[in-house]
Amino acid sequence: MVRQTRVVEAVPATTPFIGPEQLMRETGQAQLVRLGANESAFGPSPRAVEAMSRDLPRLAWYGDPESLDLRDALAEKHRCAPDEILVGAGIDDLMGLAVRAFVGPGNTALWTLGTYPTFSYHVIGYGGRPLTTPYRSDGTPDCDALIEAARRASPTIVYLANPDNPSGRFIERRELVAFYEALPSDALLLLDEAYADFVDAADLLPPSFGDRLVRLRTFSKAYGLAGARIGYALSSRRNISIFAKIRLQYGVNRNAQVGALESLRDEPFRRHVVDETARARDEYYRLARELGRSYIESQTNFVCIDFGTASAATRVMSDLLEHGVWVRKPGAPPLDSCIRVSAGTPSMRATFAAALRAVTEVTV
Amino acid sequence: MVRQTRVVEAVPATTPFIGPEQLMRETGQAQLVRLGANESAFGPSPRAVEAMSRDLPRLAWYGDPESLDLRDALAEKHRCAPDEILVGAGIDDLMGLAVRAFVGPGNTALWTLGTYPTFSYHVIGYGGRPLTTPYRSDGTPDCDALIEAARRASPTIVYLANPDNPSGRFIERRELVAFYEALPSDALLLLDEAYADFVDAADLLPPSFGDRLVRLRTFSKAYGLAGARIGYALSSRRNISIFAKIRLQYGVNRNAQVGALESLRDEPFRRHVVDETARARDEYYRLARELGRSYIESQTNFVCIDFGTASAATRVMSDLLEHGVWVRKPGAPPLDSCIRVSAGTPSMRATFAAALRAVTEVTV
Repeated sequence: MVRQTRVVEAVPATTPFIGPEQLMRETGQAQLVRLGANESAFGPSPRAVEAMSRDLPRLAWYGDPESLDLRDALAEKHRCAPDEILVGAGIDDLMGLAVRAFVGPGNTALWTLGTYPTFSYHVIGYGGRPLTTPYRSDGTPDCDALIEAARRASPTIVYLANPDNPSGRFIERRELVAFYEALPSDALLLLDEAYADFVDAADLLPPSFGDRLVRLRTFSKAYGLAGARIGYALSSRRNISIFAKIRLQYGVNRNAQVGALESLRDEPFRRHVVDETARARDEYYRLARELGRSYIESQTNFVCIDFGTASAATRVMSDLLEHGVWVRKPGAPPLDSCIRVSAGTPSMRATFAAALRAVTEVTV
Repeated sequence: MVRQTRVVEAVPATTPFIGPEQLMRETGQAQLVRLGANESAFGPSPRAVEAMSRDLPRLAWYGDPESLDLRDALAEKHRCAPDEILVGAGIDDLMGLAVRAFVGPGNTALWTLGTYPTFSYHVIGYGGRPLTTPYRSDGTPDCDALIEAARRASPTIVYLANPDNPSGRFIERRELVAFYEALPSDALLLLDEAYADFVDAADLLPPSFGDRLVRLRTFSKAYGLAGARIGYALSSRRNISIFAKIRLQYGVNRNAQVGALESLRDEPFRRHVVDETARARDEYYRLARELGRSYIESQTNFVCIDFGTASAATRVMSDLLEHGVWVRKPGAPPLDSCIRVSAGTPSMRATFAAALRAVTEVTV
């Protein structure tokens, strides 16, 4: 029998997320209204679908390992150089590279307890030392607590999702700049901007901002390409070249490169998605008020609705599943009394609203 | 400035492969006859293309993180259980998991010098200790030398590609079984079967063979889905569950899952590809004989043709590139005097043959 490395031996068997396909097998349901994973209900750009469809017969060819065309287009979008960009198989992949390069065994990584769980998955997977601070009571990551913990414990990476997942909260640019500047000079800020395409570009950090900053972006959310697994890191040439030393050269699907490039060219479609998403959020806010529930104003494609206690929220989530509606819920306080529902199309929203009214009458 | 981990700091900046897209930029060529990466010239199954095309509008949905349907189909094909299978983003991805889980910093990994370079890339990337033995003079991996080195140096992983890349040689089942049994009991045999779909199934190992064996398979070669990035590991439940602890849950493109599943259902197409590939090999053998060059009989979709010295082979490769034909060459002796050309369609073969005749008249 071959022995695992010490680091991997210590990793527990966990699954950060149960997929809807498994829930369908378990419950025997043939389909679910998918509002659990913040997938875009508005789909990919039709132009991107057409470009991908045209390229499918060439799928016997590997994609360009350097993603040259896509990086050129991204460099233009972000007003930076192509070698300040690394394309990877989604944010999860890029996050793994960052943890592997800068945390590794024994170093500390710091994040907000209950935020996007894949960061913690990587830290534990690479043998890092986890350090967390709690959310503020309103569900915002607590920047002051993070700064204090960073000064005390010297983490190599401080992780922040902005807009945050699962709260949907957004930290304004001025506060974010102050946060970055207050962090120790030997800590990297890993800024997960998965939902930044739902925010006005003017409210985000300027291009090429800071050597200790790695920004992670994705085509999974506003661009509706979650299934394609494609995202990118924006950072200094030095950090990008470090990731390049250890990345999978051929890790990105060729068709995903094609779809991402065409999606960038279809800015009207992204704006349409952002507008539809805002309408969906407003409708969820009204529904929450109607049911006498509080909610968190979100800058993303999902909304947290509060049911008072974690067990009540869990019950609502399970009952919704019985009605064929799949949502998720945050795992840690103070957000664990909420369910988190993704922006749906009008018909998905109607199904969700009817199901939520039905299950809250009975269970809450 | 944030310090890299010691392991990553020691990793040199290397690129295992230069992609044809970069060569096209460098040489200003608008297209190349792609015979360099053992991509299938016969494309993906038309049925798979149709199924993927139909599913593209659903690409806003993540793929099933457990690949349940695909693993069921693979379990049926390989007569094993679904939990003896892990689906990943191609063999490179799965190989990385194996090195991370069993080699890591300080442990030794053993392979044949000059075989598929991504294994060595991972060993160095994860801080392992590289140990290599040379090919036999006929270009076959030297199983006796590997056994001897394994007994001496106690590697945690012994890597073998069968059929081998870049030689194309195939080690018969009986010899492979003897090799496996002669390895130390604390060494894992990582068997890269990327090209096994070109071999009769009866000549491969039986299902669920041995606890110390991890077999890596791909849809990139005979199934013509290299650009999709999808492959799988076959091993014991124990080894699969170890990989599952550290894998990217959402690492596989949804459309790749769809294409892989439909490809499995289109066995006539795979047989057609295998037959066409055999024709291509025979044509390359005849061409080599015509030019007075020796070659290696291959069980894969590529052939090595020998030009006597490494510098002659390099010159042939560069001159072919000027004729718009892209091939690669092995990097280490004794194979480095060869170019390696992938099986093309009849028209690609004609272009290659004309170009090779032209450049060998001049340069060799």
